This record gives sequence, C-alpha cells and structure tokens, in this order.
Amino acid sequence: MPEFDLAVRGGTLVTATDTFPADLGIRDGRIAAIGARITDAARTLDASGLLVLPGGIDSHVHIAQASGPGIVMADDFASATRAAAAGGNTCVMPFALQPRGASLREATHAYRALAEGQCHIDVAIHLIVSDPTPAVLGQELPALIAEGYTSFKVFMTYDDLVLNDRQILDVFDLARREGARVMVHAEGYDAIRYMTEKLEKAGETRPFGHALSRPQVVEREAAHRAISHAELVDLPIVIVHVSGEQAMEQIAWGRERGLKIHAETCPQYLTLTADHMKGLGSDDPMEGAKYVCSPPPREAANQAAIWRGIQTGLFDVVSSDHCPFRYDDPAGKLNPKGRTSFRWVPNGIPGIETRLPILFSEGVSAGRISLNRFVELTATNHAKLYGLYPRKGSIGIGFDADLTLWDPNRRETIRQANLHHGADYTPWEGFSVTGWPVTTIARGAIVAENGRVVGPLGHGQVIDRAVSP
Amino acid sequence: MPEFDLAVRGGTLVTATDTFPADLGIRDGRIAAIGARITDAARTLDASGLLVLPGGIDSHVHIAQASGPGIVMADDFASATRAAAAGGNTCVMPFALQPRGASLREATHAYRALAEGQCHIDVAIHLIVSDPTPAVLGQELPALIAEGYTSFKVFMTYDDLVLNDRQILDVFDLARREGARVMVHAEGYDAIRYMTEKLEKAGETRPFGHALSRPQVVEREAAHRAISHAELVDLPIVIVHVSGEQAMEQIAWGRERGLKIHAETCPQYLTLTADHMKGLGSDDPMEGAKYVCSPPPREAANQAAIWRGIQTGLFDVVSSDHCPFRYDDPAGKLNPKGRTSFRWVPNGIPGIETRLPILFSEGVSAGRISLNRFVELTATNHAKLYGLYPRKGSIGIGFDADLTLWDPNRRETIRQANLHHGADYTPWEGFSVTGWPVTTIARGAIVAENGRVVGPLGHGQVIDRAVSP
Amino acid sequence: MPEFDLAVRGGTLVTATDTFPADLGIRDGRIAAIGARITDAARTLDASGLLVLPGGIDSHVHIAQASGPGIVMADDFASATRAAAAGGNTCVMPFALQPRGASLREATHAYRALAEGQCHIDVAIHLIVSDPTPAVLGQELPALIAEGYTSFKVFMTYDDLVLNDRQILDVFDLARREGARVMVHAEGYDAIRYMTEKLEKAGETRPFGHALSRPQVVEREAAHRAISHAELVDLPIVIVHVSGEQAMEQIAWGRERGLKIHAETCPQYLTLTADHMKGLGSDDPMEGAKYVCSPPPREAANQAAIWRGIQTGLFDVVSSDHCPFRYDDPAGKLNPKGRTSFRWVPNGIPGIETRLPILFSEGVSAGRISLNRFVELTATNHAKLYGLYPRKGSIGIGFDADLTLWDPNRRETIRQANLHHGADYTPWEGFSVTGWPVTTIARGAIVAENGRVVGPLGHGQVIDRAVSP
Amino acid sequence: MPEFDLAVRGGTLVTATDTFPADLGIRDGRIAAIGARITDAARTLDASGLLVLPGGIDSHVHIAQASGPGIVMADDFASATRAAAAGGNTCVMPFALQPRGASLREATHAYRALAEGQCHIDVAIHLIVSDPTPAVLGQELPALIAEGYTSFKVFMTYDDLVLNDRQILDVFDLARREGARVMVHAEGYDAIRYMTEKLEKAGETRPFGHALSRPQVVEREAAHRAISHAELVDLPIVIVHVSGEQAMEQIAWGRERGLKIHAETCPQYLTLTADHMKGLGSDDPMEGAKYVCSPPPREAANQAAIWRGIQTGLFDVVSSDHCPFRYDDPAGKLNPKGRTSFRWVPNGIPGIETRLPILFSEGVSAGRISLNRFVELTATNHAKLYGLYPRKGSIGIGFDADLTLWDPNRRETIRQANLHHGADYTPWEGFSVTGWPVTTIARGAIVAENGRVVGPLGHGQVIDRAVSP
Repeated sequence: MPEFDLAVRGGTLVTATDTFPADLGIRDGRIAAIGARITDAARTLDASGLLVLPGGIDSHVHIAQASGPGIVMADDFASATRAAAAGGNTCVMPFALQPRGASLREATHAYRALAEGQCHIDVAIHLIVSDPTPAVLGQELPALIAEGYTSFKVFMTYDDLVLNDRQILDVFDLARREGARVMVHAEGYDAIRYMTEKLEKAGETRPFGHALSRPQVVEREAAHRAISHAELVDLPIVIVHVSGEQAMEQIAWGRERGLKIHAETCPQYLTLTADHMKGLGSDDPMEGAKYVCSPPPREAANQAAIWRGIQTGLFDVVSSDHCPFRYDDPAGKLNPKGRTSFRWVPNGIPGIETRLPILFSEGVSAGRISLNRFVELTATNHAKLYGLYPRKGSIGIGFDADLTLWDPNRRETIRQANLHHGADYTPWEGFSVTGWPVTTIARGAIVAENGRVVGPLGHGQVIDRAVSP
Repeated sequence: MPEFDLAVRGGTLVTATDTFPADLGIRDGRIAAIGARITDAARTLDASGLLVLPGGIDSHVHIAQASGPGIVMADDFASATRAAAAGGNTCVMPFALQPRGASLREATHAYRALAEGQCHIDVAIHLIVSDPTPAVLGQELPALIAEGYTSFKVFMTYDDLVLNDRQILDVFDLARREGARVMVHAEGYDAIRYMTEKLEKAGETRPFGHALSRPQVVEREAAHRAISHAELVDLPIVIVHVSGEQAMEQIAWGRERGLKIHAETCPQYLTLTADHMKGLGSDDPMEGAKYVCSPPPREAANQAAIWRGIQTGLFDVVSSDHCPFRYDDPAGKLNPKGRTSFRWVPNGIPGIETRLPILFSEGVSAGRISLNRFVELTATNHAKLYGLYPRKGSIGIGFDADLTLWDPNRRETIRQANLHHGADYTPWEGFSVTGWPVTTIARGAIVAENGRVVGPLGHGQVIDRAVSP
Repeated sequence: MPEFDLAVRGGTLVTATDTFPADLGIRDGRIAAIGARITDAARTLDASGLLVLPGGIDSHVHIAQASGPGIVMADDFASATRAAAAGGNTCVMPFALQPRGASLREATHAYRALAEGQCHIDVAIHLIVSDPTPAVLGQELPALIAEGYTSFKVFMTYDDLVLNDRQILDVFDLARREGARVMVHAEGYDAIRYMTEKLEKAGETRPFGHALSRPQVVEREAAHRAISHAELVDLPIVIVHVSGEQAMEQIAWGRERGLKIHAETCPQYLTLTADHMKGLGSDDPMEGAKYVCSPPPREAANQAAIWRGIQTGLFDVVSSDHCPFRYDDPAGKLNPKGRTSFRWVPNGIPGIETRLPILFSEGVSAGRISLNRFVELTATNHAKLYGLYPRKGSIGIGFDADLTLWDPNRRETIRQANLHHGADYTPWEGFSVTGWPVTTIARGAIVAENGRVVGPLGHGQVIDRAVSP
Repeated sequence: MPEFDLAVRGGTLVTATDTFPADLGIRDGRIAAIGARITDAARTLDASGLLVLPGGIDSHVHIAQASGPGIVMADDFASATRAAAAGGNTCVMPFALQPRGASLREATHAYRALAEGQCHIDVAIHLIVSDPTPAVLGQELPALIAEGYTSFKVFMTYDDLVLNDRQILDVFDLARREGARVMVHAEGYDAIRYMTEKLEKAGETRPFGHALSRPQVVEREAAHRAISHAELVDLPIVIVHVSGEQAMEQIAWGRERGLKIHAETCPQYLTLTADHMKGLGSDDPMEGAKYVCSPPPREAANQAAIWRGIQTGLFDVVSSDHCPFRYDDPAGKLNPKGRTSFRWVPNGIPGIETRLPILFSEGVSAGRISLNRFVELTATNHAKLYGLYPRKGSIGIGFDADLTLWDPNRRETIRQANLHHGADYTPWEGFSVTGWPVTTIARGAIVAENGRVVGPLGHGQVIDRAVSP
C-alpha cells in the first residue's frame, strides 16, 4: 500500500511567511509530509509551474440568510459552497441569524440543519445576536459558545439587527467572560436614518442615494464607538468590512493606544467606487442597485488608502462579505419598493467566487503585496482569528489538506456566465485578472478543477471550534 | 451737569488683547470715554493699583433648576446672582429646563418669571431640550430662538435628559436652520449605566464610585460622537465642561479637520482630582460627595493637560458649571438614597463665586496665562459665543459698563464662611489665592464692594439675545 | 489751545478683539482719548464709513540688503518705507545682515546708518547672524541685544548664510540666556543642493526648477529639526514664511507637546502656486522668475491648508517677506547667470505694499477671517512677538498714534503702475481686491493718503526695543 | 545508505507563522523533509519536549572592529561566533568599517580575511561607509555590492563616522540605483556635541552623563531627518537600534505616509534603563560604564513603548548590537580618559549570546508575544531584510539546516562565568530567564550543545548575498 493517498508534486509551496519548491504527501485528508521528492502515493497531481497555497478561507459570507419581507438571498449552501470551491476556497464562514424575539439556540440549530450534507467544502458558523435578552446572555449564548459557535457578530445599524450601546456593552462583557470572538458591523443607525430621510425628502431616491446616506463619517463614528466600548470592557474585537480611510484612522489610533482591534476589508473597497451606484456604464440608474452594499464603496482616492492598510498590516483579513441577491428579480435588487427608494434595495453583493482572483491580481500580480501576505490575508489570519487554526489556514504536518493550486500567470476575464453562485450578475463583469485557481483540494479530495466543481455535495462538513486563547 | 455719571480713575485697563493705564468715563450705564485723564464725573472711583477688567461672564451655571425627586438646588436667582456679583461677575447664564412631556415654551417662561426682579446682575437664559417632539422642533424652539433664547444645551447622559443620536441630529439640524448655538454635555449614557451597575454589583457604592463609573473613555467617545454629528449636519457646537485630555484630543483632531468645535472647561478640572471623591482629608468616605460632579475631576496628571489646552487655545471659555447642592441636608448630597450608592448623590458643585479668583491665581499669578487670556476666557469669549457681544464682554465705547476692579496682589483664603451662595460648603475650603475682585460694577452701578453685595436686588435684568451670525 | 492735535471722527475702531464705533483724540503723536464724541482738536479727520485699524506692522522685510555678486536689491529705505506707508503700514522690520567673516556690530551700525533720516515710517531692525564666532556669541550679540536689537534670524539654507546644527544650537543657547527672539528660515541646505544638482544634471534649469528643488519635505524636515533644537535648548522660536502643510503639521505637533513655536506665513502662500514659476500666462518660461522666492509657493490645494492655519490660530503673523528685485535688469531676476539655471535667479518677490489689501480681501471680505483676526495677524502679534508692544500694535491710550483708515468696500485692482516700491513688477498684477487703505497715520502724522505718500522723508525713526519677557 | 544524514525527531517545529509537531530530515546540510515520522537517518536527535526553531540570525553585531585609539574590541571572529552559537544563533552579520581616507574595498577585503576560517557559524558582512568619496561612490561601492556585500550602514553621529546630510543623500541615491539595503544609526551629532560640552562644563562627567547627553529628542530628530532623506530619494531604509518612543512615533508617522521604513530594536531597550548608567547596584559610579551604549537605555516607562512596538509590528527585527569591550581593562571601559569623562568611555555592550534567551523569556514566556513572532523577530525578518532568504531564516525544504532546539521551560540565570564572549562582564549578570537554547545546528552540523560549543572552528563560512528585489 502506498504511503500517501495523494502526492502534489513539483509545485511551489507558499505559507504566510515562506515560499519554496516542495512536494506534498497527503494521507487521510491531512498533510503528512513535505519534502524534496515525494513519490510513494496512490495518486499524483502535477503542480509544476503552480503555486500550492493553503485553501482560501472566507470568514465573512452570507448564505441562505433571512432577508427583508419578500426578499430572498440568492444562495443556499449547495450553490454558495460550489461557487466558493470553484473560486479556490476550502472553508467559508456564514452566519446563523437570531430573529428578534426568537431563540438564538433554535435559530442556530435550524441554520446548521440547512448546511448539513449540503456543502462542497467545510463550513464554520458564526452567530448574529440581534436580541440579547437575559435568556440569551445568561444561557443560550454561553452554551452555544461551548458547543463550538465561538464567534458572533453585532450590528450597529439595520432596523432588525441594530443593538443599542448598552446591549453592545453587555454582549462584549459576555464575550470577554466566555472567550468568544466578536465581529462588529460599524455604521451608525441613527445617522443613516437621519440622512436617508433627508435624502428622500430631497427626492434623491436612486440607488446612488445609498452612497450619500452613509458617508465616511457614519462609519468612522461607529468605529470609534465600538473601539471605545471594547476599551471599556477590555475585549479584542474585529471591525468587519472597513470601507473608508476615516475608519482606518480610528483603528490605527486605537492600536497605538495598545488596544487589540482587528480589521477586515473586502475586494469591493479596493476596486469599486461610489460612482458605480450611479449605474456606471449604463443609462439606467437602477443598474446602480447591483453595487448597493454596506458600507458603500467610496470615492476612487479612498482605494489607495485601503491598499496602504493592506500593505502596512492594518488589515488582518480580506473577506468577500458575499451577500448575494438576484438583480432582475422581484425578490432581489429590483423588488418593487426598491424602485421607489434606495432604502428598500437589499444591501449586499455576490463575491465568494471572485475574492481570491481579484486580490491576487490587483495585489500580487500588480506588485502591491507579496505572495505570503496574500496567503496571510486570505487564509491564515482567518483561521487564527476564528479558532480554525492549527487545523486549517496553513500548510503543515497534521493540517487538513486544504489546498489551492494556483496559476500565477493565467489571465482570465470575470464573467457571470462562468460563475457558480446563485446570483444573476457579478459586480466585476468583464474585470480582467492575472492569476487563477486551477485546482481546489479540500481535506485531500479534489473538489474543483479548471472551473468545474467535481467534488460530491456533502463532502464539506460543519466544523465546531474551540474557544480562542 | 458733569459729563459722566461715574469716572474710574488710575487703573490699568485690560481687554482680551490689550493692557494699558487709562481712565474710564461712564454715562447711562455704558462706557462713554476711555482717556488719559477723565475728571468731569458725578462720582469718581479710585482704581489706583487695580486692574479694570470686563466683568466676568459665567455662561454655564445652574440656578433654581428642578433636580431629582426630593432634591433641591441650593440657589435661587437672588442668592446665585449675589454670589456671582461678589465673585466679580456681571452676567450669568443659567438654563431653563424642559421636563420630559412638558412644553419647552411654558417651562422657559415659567423659569424666566423666577428671575425677573430677583437678580443683582444681568442674566441671559439658555434652554435645555430634553424632549424634542415635533411640536418642540416645529414651533416652540424656533419661536423661542426668535424671542432671544438663542442657545440651548443637549445631554448625552442622565435618565431624564439624555437624547438619543437621532434626536441630537434633529436638534442640530434645527439649530443650523435657525442659527442657534448648541452646547453639548458629552458623556455616554449607556456606558455610564453599564459601569454603574457593574460597580454596584461589586459593592463599590461610595461617592468615589462616581469617578470609576465615568472614566475618560466615556467622555471621549461621546465627544467623538458629538463631533461626528456636528460634522454630518455642518454645525459649530460647544462641548461644555471638558474634563479629560482624551476628549481634548478629539476636539483638537476635529479642528485640524476644519470643524468648528468650541470647548469649555471649569476650575474643578484644574484644581481637583478624582481622589477628592474618596473624601480626601477626612475619615468619612461620604465627604467625597462634596466633590461629585459630572464629568468627574481626573487624576492629578490630567490637570497639566487641561492647562495646556488653556494655553494653546483649545479652550474658548472657562465657566463654573455652578450646580449647588447643600451637603448636610436630606435634600442635598447626603440624601438617604445617596448613602446607598453614588448613583443617587446629586451631581454638581458650587463655584459661581470662586471661578474668577481660582483661575486668576492659578493662571495669571502662577505665570501660566496672560492677563489678556484671562479676560478672554472669563468674559470676552462667553459674550461672543452666546450673542452678548458687543453689548458685553469687553471694554469699549458703547458697551455696558460691566467692570470688575481687581487687585492682582491681594492674597485671600477661600472660606465657606465668607461666600454668598446657598450651599453649605465649598469644594475649595482653605484654598489660597493671589488676586481678588474688590469692586463689581454692573451697568454702571456698584453692586459689590470688598466682599459685600451692595447693589439692590432687581438691578439685574433678563437679557434677550440676537441670533449669532 | 485745543485738547487734541488731531481727532479721527466717526469711524469704527478695530482691535485684535473688539470692534465698536468711536472717535479718537491724538496728542503729541499718541492716542490720548477714545470716546463717543471727540471734538476739541486742532484738526479733524472724517472717518465715516471707514475702519480705524492699528497701522500695519510688517515684521519680515528685506531692504537694501547685500545680495549675491552683481545683484542689487530694488529698494532702499526711502522707497521701501514709501511703499509700506502707501500700503497701510506704520512700521516695518528689515534685517541687518552680518557678512561671513565680518563684525556683526559693524554691519549692524552701518545698516542703521542707511536708515537714519531716510524713512517715512518707523523701522525696527532685526539682525541676521551668519557667522557666530566666539567674538560674536561672547560679546557682539549680547551687546547688540542690550542696545535694542532684540531679535535675529538664522538660516538653515543659502550658501552664504546657512548655519550648521551646532551653530544653531549655540545661537539658540545665547538667545535663551539673553532673552532674544529668534526667527528661523527652515529649509534644508543639503537637500536643496542635492535636488538642485540632480535637476541641473537632468536639464531642468528653468525657473520652475526652483519649485522642484525645494519640495515640501525639505521645509518639513528643517522645521522638525529647528523645533527639536528649540526643545533641547528650551527656547521659543518663530518659524518664518511657512509655506507648506507638512511644515504646519510639525508645528502643530510641537505645540501639542507643549513647545512654544510661533509661526509666520505670507500672502504668496495664500494666492500663488508653483505653476506661476512656469511663467503662468506667458510664453516665456523666464517669466517664472518673477515668482521665484523661498520657500516656493506650492500646489493649489496647499492654499486651503494655509488658510486653515490662519483660521485655527496656527499662524501668529502674516508678513510680506518683501525681498524685491527688478525683473528686466542684469542686476535682478534676469541676470545672465540666472538664464542658465534657476540656481542663480535671486530669491525673493516684492510685497510690502500689497500684503494688507490681499489679506483683507481674501481673508475678511471673503469671509474667511474676522476683522479682529486681521488686525491680530497684521499688527498686534507682530508688536507682541518682537518687543514693540505696548508702544505699537493696537489702539489704546498711550500707544503711538499709528493708524490706518480702511475702506472695507473699496474695490481696486493691483497694478505695478500704481505701486511705490523699487521693483519693476508685482507678482499680483491685475489681482482684484475688496478693501483698501485710504489714509495712513504714523505717530499722529498723516503719511499717506489715497495712494499718495505725503509725509516727509525722515518722519520715520529707527526704534530700539526692550528684551521680551 | 540512509536517506538522511540527520533526523530531528519529536519536536515542535516553529516558523514565523506556523507551529506544529513534525520530524525533520536533513541531507547535505539542508532540510530535505518535514514529516510526521522520519526515521531513515544516519543520526537521530531526540527533540521531544523541545521547540525546533530556525537558528537565530543576529544582523547587527560588531566583531574585531577598529575602535578609538588605544581601545580594543573584546571579540574576534572565533570568540564572537562561539558565543553566538552557544546562544542559539546560526548566522551573524558584522560590519567591515571603512576608515576615513582609506579604500572601502581594501578595508572590506582585509576584514573578510579576518573571518575566513575563524568562524563557528556563518557570517555575512555589512559595510560601514564613513568616507563617500567619488571613488567610493563611483566604483568601490557598486563593485562591492555586486560582489555580495549588499548592505551598509551610515552614521549620523560619532567623530570618525558621521556623514553630513549631503553625503547621506548621495549614499542613499547610490543605494537606490544599486539595490542595496541601507541601515541608519540615527542620533544627531551636533546635538550630542552641544550637550556633551554643556554637561562637561557643568561637571557632569560620570558615565551617567552619557544618558543625559543623548536625550530622546536627539534620536527622534535624527530619525525624522533620515526618514525625510529617504522620502526625498524614494529609498526604503532600516533605522537600527531604536531606543525611544519618540523615534518610534516618527517611524509610525512615516509609514502612515506610505514610506517604507524598517526598524530594529535590541534587548537593552527592553530590560535596561538609564539609571543603570549610574552604576545601579554599586557604590562606584564608574560601574555605570558597563551599560554605556548608543543610543542609551531610557527611563523605565519607555520599555512599555518598545514592547508595544514589538507587539504591533512597528519593529521588524530584534538584534543585539553586540559591541563588546572589557570593563576592567585600560583598553576597555575603564581606559584612563574614560575616567575623566563619559565622552571617552567606549560605546557598546556585549549581547550576542544573551539576545535570544532574554527576548524569549520576557517576550514569549511572559506572554507578550507569540512563538511565531519570536521567530520572525530573531531569524526570518533578518534573512528577508538582508538578502539571506530563502537560504536562511526559516524551516523549509532546501533551506540551510540552521536550527535551534529550544527548551521553553528551562530556567537559567545569566552569569558571565558561563558565557563564551571575550568581554569580562555581562550587563545582565544575574538576570533570570525561562527558555533556553539547548542545541544549535548550523548547516546540518551540531555546533553547540548544552552550553558547550562542539563544532569545529572554520565550519562557519562567509556568505555573499544577492541584491534585494
């Protein structure tokens, strides 16, 4: 019997710190050997000319999540993990959302049931706490954390999700006691409402009004507030989908004070602008709805600031914030009320399949970041932040054999026609990239190859995590 | 008939920019002449060896204001203006408070009625908006502004006063439209509640718990939030009673961004510390209640930061935030519930009579600030900020003859026994100062002389103001 | 005999803090009375509809100063003070320059001799220390300070003037001991040489090369260095002609650290740009020589930063840095070597006559600053910084009757044809302003009226000053 | 024949990003396999319970370097590399110093000759440029860079080494063209001279005067200046041995502006203070000479700032700045002139053998940094900064088998008696640490074991490097 189930030969192995040519030997779904020459394997993959990367981890995606009345998210677990695998990912982290008035525990278990058996790659579930009642804080949440749901998100905006400052402080306090990881959506609810009503009163109801209703100050103020609450409670937090340099300034300021503030950004803040919400390249202003997400992409000059944050280490992770809605659909972007005001256009864009190529191309191929930093931003730091490490996130003996074979020179153009997600468009239609995932290996099995998803539905598992130290 | 009613001769005139020897001629309550030698007067005051200053304006005092159930403020208009006059002031600005659920207009008119005929010196009334209903925003407040109540305060804390962010934004918006001046009490309500419950649970109920419940981050976060709201609405604001260098940093940061943020501090942040709330100098921890005010005085090192802000121009005004309660009184600091937790100790300290001597002594006599800066901080900028200028706030032809003759070399020790306010203690008992107001002249009349209030009750008027440009 | 020699009636008096209608009575060249109605005067000037300002003080001008070989400065004391008076000024402060190897004392006395009897308005002389030998530091400079030359400038660039860091520290040390005021020209010599040679090697020799040779970093680094030396020695300093927001950032940073750093800027940094050195508006690139001064004007966006510094108080004074050379003259801008490289174009532009109208128009008339701030920036702070106060710089009893009657509404266009300086051009040819000085009164005598200089040559005196406290 | 020369079994492998149990297989001095179980080896080392780290790289050491007249450095290559090996290092980087007036090329080749055959571990040589003549800039330095001396240091202080700003700019310019790495010793020469003379004049000649002569502002100013020069030339630089939080602030500021500024600190700034130079723990103030190094250790509170810089990523590397002099020796610290003034006490302390244990103990064992960050700071980043990567600095297939087996739990006390360097004291005498290097493997050979150096002299080679990309 051969020593290994699979050998990956001739590639260049990349971790968050190292780059060197090596063969890999995989056994029982795990990495068992790294060597100059590994031959004794049942199956061999030729990785000549390719990079062997840790599989992408996308720690911020929305899948099959309840949205507003009449609105339906475009992806279920099958389609979302299919798209993720095709895009070079081996693990994604969606959110179990607690509806107001409902049990967090029941919502979580129901959500997990949707995932079981329906995934191409592994999934780890965050929670969203929208109603921190005494029962939730006293019993449900501690129990769920102990079960392995060790991270959750709180919102500072959205009618159905926003927590007030007191609730945020109580939730932070619990996270500190229980060792959970907290993610914060930092935009100020009241400021957005104020701006929205003012814009609507002035007749500015097009999708572009969305950008106007959430200027950078709205994100910056909420970031400062979240940082202050974290300081008061003495809790490290993750500020997700940071979009503007003003919020970045607050994060840098907090860190210089010695606070542990982690930060995430997304490809949309590196490549899209507020002007896209005007329906850039189209006569129909409703086209702008395709780019409506929160926070909104900013002015073009802001992209340079985000890149600088990626280069200097301000950002720990780049996620997709995949939140897919169909465009030409009464249950999606063009729902009837959405035509009357940007307020009713569902917030979110698809991106689970395009995150890695876009960041690789604009980052590595364009000379802005190193290969190692790419791996750190797209896999290693996700695993370390959210308790998946040392099982996932790097290439080492005993790790899950989650790998992406990457062709750094391949040129592709992103086309909706080639994507696997449930949405009917991509915000990056026609976007050219250099660098492409050619093979995705999840726990030792090839799940995607050259744009085809070949792994069986159900190969992916729902993973429980231990509490971060 | 002599040309002037009163000549002030031989003194050294001081304004916010100039210092020179000059005589003054006063006619009909106004300054009519400044000259090298003015003799043709019905009465002459010898100011040899004295400074002739614009009378102090204290733009932040609380008089006869409704407090918590069973709690009574220690000063009415008669006692407060008596104390103010004795302390070198010629104008004070208290607050007409709108109780929740009540009409702001009725509350204001009722409050004004308390003042009419009961004042030794002039009074101008700010409003406190605690319930910005559509009626208040749509009719009452615009009408009151037009009547001359051109400034009001909003609170970011206190059960009965706190506005949420949306209310603050709406009130700011109105102020921008109507040209009113807005003062902000910047401390975060939810953070204070969180800390208070945590401290009470831990058994920390002494007056010193008050200091622990409101650390600098609580003030800093609220300052950043208020600044952000002001930026969104494009409104200049005044952040009152700034106590900590962290809030100062936010103000400096906002100004460098081009925002118009005015700032006020108070003598307590220059001379008292959090340790005073431990009952410094006494065995009885309840003695600390004498120093309970909001925001609380900070650690000793913070005083240097406040002084630096006074020197660099960060602070526009120094007010007293006079808010007097009797100490040994069931309706004051030692009310029965206050003994069970700091939460029930009424917030506030008396200071209307001691503000000028303390700032002069620690500022001018100690070499930290110039005489001109003293005048600017205690009179001129108050008048300019709140629409009293050019009627009050400086010494010029046509200004009200509001003057304080000041002996810069006189040494005094502050003693409750010598003060004129309604409280039964002073936080500065035994505090030695160099520099003392010897004569206070209000609209041409001598109202206080050598510690005696000689002017008739009713000389002071309630002043209406025009909207600031 | 009438009580006053001159009454100025019906105007609006403006100081750095106050604005009010008043008459002035002048006796023996000094202000003797400020009153509602002053009539008993030998002569009366009607100031109805005019502002009565303290006469402008320009604390940074170059007059009859030795320049490079073959280069002649375009103004002597007669022409410079004539132009200054016409432009609303009543006092200017030029520099006595010590040539390397020469006696500072002799240079100063020789320079003073040029001024005596040749001035229309008063003059106070700064020194330039270019060779701080033991004799200069040990005897000459202390003696000159005691004689009333209480301020001097040091240069961080220019072949013949640059001091190295050790010399700067020694000179700062002396200033601290003797109580002198030090001005610093902050641009880094070595960086400029490096850039100049690089540009010349690349063939970039046009006047515009001057701007390229001195980017903002060159000024910023020198500012940081000067601030650090001042911190080490514990000496307040004045950084003159600050041109860029990067240097401003250093000054703001130093002040937040508690250092006493004063700052000056000039009209050229508010209204001109680097592009002017391309010969803006002309086909001849040599036209750019008309705008060559150091530091150079910056990109257009930088002007907003300078204005913000004027508004926030970062700048204490606005001077002209008048340094006039004829343009079409072999001893001026178009000297033969200057045509071969920007390196040989004499640095400096004329501005003594246009400073006040430009700052008034762009500042006060354009709504950027108040009248009082204008007075502070153009007169009061100059007097206070350099020991002329309380003799000059404001309007008060006993002050020199140095006044400018100003028509705030008069529209004029700046034309070389109407100016009084010795240069043959103005950088502001065709610049339109609102606000104009109509009458200049120096020590009680009218020296300029409606663009004509009427005062006798010799009315101006050379003023000695006391050491600043 | 077995597959591997050496197997390291049972340990926990650590890189700058990963930590996992693994065996290592070594062949021909290089790492050939990483696996779950590697047995087929000629020799096996049991690493059970031990960490397997990349061997320490110390990129800043001084060995056999010419010092002042009559002063002799305490280490030659044999003793320095012996001590380094015993302390867990596998590569050190000393400096070939160009004496003023001499050929850099000759100095370098002569210095290399001292190293050849005399090293226990590998050595890579930096240059010190003290005399950038046209010959040096035009020919010698480019040729040496091409030969593999791809990095050099410039000094902003020291009589015999200081470059002026123009020389620094020229050298930076050359480095940019040739792709060399520049290290900067950032302390201001003139400021130090000024302070030194002032202190000597005041009679402050004890070793502690050294600390007083170089306050933080001296380092901060030089750091700002170096950063500005680097900005002008557009060159990444390394600021070495950063000692104070003021210099750190400049580095952070530069990075936020997008500049590439690397930074190094040393154990002395984490564990020693200025008070040590008073002869802490001794009656003899000359004992303070044992701690005289440049920059000097700072006040105790500064250590926290340095730690924060290590935690936040501000620092890229921790080196020893090993610069050993004997204490009780007329050619060392107690040379005759050194007794007359701190100015003559040779600057430098030994630290090559203690760097790793001190940083591990105070960093990893004390919970301040992760194991991975320790590896990054002590090995990986050194290799990446200075062109040794991917040959050295991590554990990967094809890398030199440079390894340190580390016992994280072993407690030791640092004693001069146990050290291997040429100095007669250690500044850390009696310092207790947790964590200790037990075996050092250099290119596959065991060179040190349990405090004994067992490898043959001459095993270490002088390594040439390629130009950094």
